Amino acid sequence: MKLTILGCYAATPRTITNPTSQVLEIKNQMFLIDCGEGTQVQLRKHKIKFSRINRIFISHLHGDHFYGLIGLISTFSLLNRENDLHVYGPKGIKEIILLQLKLSNSYTGYNLYFHELESKESIVVFEDDNVIVHTIPLQHRVYTNGYLFKEKNTQRKLNIEAIEDYNIDKCYYQKIKFGGDITLDNGKNISNLELTFEPDYEKSYAFCSDTVYNEDIIPLIKSVDALYHESTFLETESHLAIKTMHSTAREAATIALKANVKKLIMGHYSTRYGNIELFKEEAKTIFNNVILANDGKTIEL
Amino acid sequence: MKLTILGCYAATPRTITNPTSQVLEIKNQMFLIDCGEGTQVQLRKHKIKFSRINRIFISHLHGDHFYGLIGLISTFSLLNRENDLHVYGPKGIKEIILLQLKLSNSYTGYNLYFHELESKESIVVFEDDNVIVHTIPLQHRVYTNGYLFKEKNTQRKLNIEAIEDYNIDKCYYQKIKFGGDITLDNGKNISNLELTFEPDYEKSYAFCSDTVYNEDIIPLIKSVDALYHESTFLETESHLAIKTMHSTAREAATIALKANVKKLIMGHYSTRYGNIELFKEEAKTIFNNVILANDGKTIEL
Repeated sequence: MKLTILGCYAATPRTITNPTSQVLEIKNQMFLIDCGEGTQVQLRKHKIKFSRINRIFISHLHGDHFYGLIGLISTFSLLNRENDLHVYGPKGIKEIILLQLKLSNSYTGYNLYFHELESKESIVVFEDDNVIVHTIPLQHRVYTNGYLFKEKNTQRKLNIEAIEDYNIDKCYYQKIKFGGDITLDNGKNISNLELTFEPDYEKSYAFCSDTVYNEDIIPLIKSVDALYHESTFLETESHLAIKTMHSTAREAATIALKANVKKLIMGHYSTRYGNIELFKEEAKTIFNNVILANDGKTIEL
Repeated sequence: MKLTILGCYAATPRTITNPTSQVLEIKNQMFLIDCGEGTQVQLRKHKIKFSRINRIFISHLHGDHFYGLIGLISTFSLLNRENDLHVYGPKGIKEIILLQLKLSNSYTGYNLYFHELESKESIVVFEDDNVIVHTIPLQHRVYTNGYLFKEKNTQRKLNIEAIEDYNIDKCYYQKIKFGGDITLDNGKNISNLELTFEPDYEKSYAFCSDTVYNEDIIPLIKSVDALYHESTFLETESHLAIKTMHSTAREAATIALKANVKKLIMGHYSTRYGNIELFKEEAKTIFNNVILANDGKTIEL
């Protein structure tokens, strides 16, 4: 799993900062998370191949999280994209995009699928052999979801007790891990399901932006390898955090501590702060393993 | 009149080029013409005060001419704008913007007025004491207008014959130019309208993008001080110009020549060309006074 921060500031794009967008790479799949204005330029700047992005996850319909989506969808057309594109986001996103495509008389040459979200509970929005993605319901001024990405282990877990009962030789373990059935010396066929458990997850990444401090998310993000949690403000502006339904650095760190995550990545800084190191200092009083997101930063999980 | 090119390339924004947007300054008013994605960043980069932009003119609803508009409108809100904002553009633009504001639950704190255009004839869309703006109907794949900006002379033209008939002294000429009436020695009041003609226009600027080669615009743009005419292609790609309803450099120069304009500014270059000097070379075979638009260039008219 590799995370590239394309933009991590709150509010609007500036010459030196970009609104929220991230690319998460899991086993050669690229997932785009949020898509503020200028995201397509950031993708180019960081040399991320447009054609490798097949799924885009939008947290909520505030401009700094999705105004770049229509431009990216249009650019995919200009580049003669052929792959299907899947967009996950709040109800309404389809209407916004299709209205703009209709009025510009420019339909996409590829299949564009919208997966509109309305649920207030965590649901699975995507799953294949390598990854499963759940929503993380957040509390903000509009309907908002974070997303939890869990990388699946492609190897199943051995049920050692069952394997020993059948007296199966160790040289077959690899075959069993990859889902193979076994034929015993007596000709009896043993299904893989008898010999294995569901695979463990490998790495996991939780993206939580934008949100007030909300302990309800803790069970969902328990022990993830990395948690991105917004920290728009410092504690000195906690009144603004409450008013605008954002979090402070201290609150982000408290969630990280209580969820026992391995690593906290902070971002969505208000542009009022000149020095983002202050966010790290504040968070570190609560939780030790803190990384400051910064536009262009790459984080190996 | 001062023109600042914020972006002048076709298609989508790249790390080194921006889609169409220009700022025209006329007597302390700033007019924004088109607003491709990233325009707000270009405005910041070129230190143009957001608060001075009160009127935005959108030529057509292709993304490279208006995807930056919603972001700019939102940013105006974040900056607590109070001035009215007027947006001129094709029918549909209001629905696109209002839908996005509604779904993001973020209404503007200032008055936002849309002036939607449908006419296929040239019409006056804005006029005050200093400037008059006409549409220039263009031919493109969707409904498109260019815009003609004419700066008004604030001084009326003296009707010397009438003035001499009344035997008015030269020391009153200044007063008359500024619209004042005159009381003769015999107590008779002479209306300014008897003593003056409508003022001439001072500078004029015609913005024409995007369009096929179309001689119908020539009467509208006759003798303007500067004509911006799109030149997406060179003649070697004239088949693409026809197919996509764009113009070549040679065609832009031909319109400039036939309309007897003082200066031709070219832009909207396809990103396929590495060297935009080729556009100038091609145009100069037809028309001599050619300027290549380039992102960030300022042109005094």
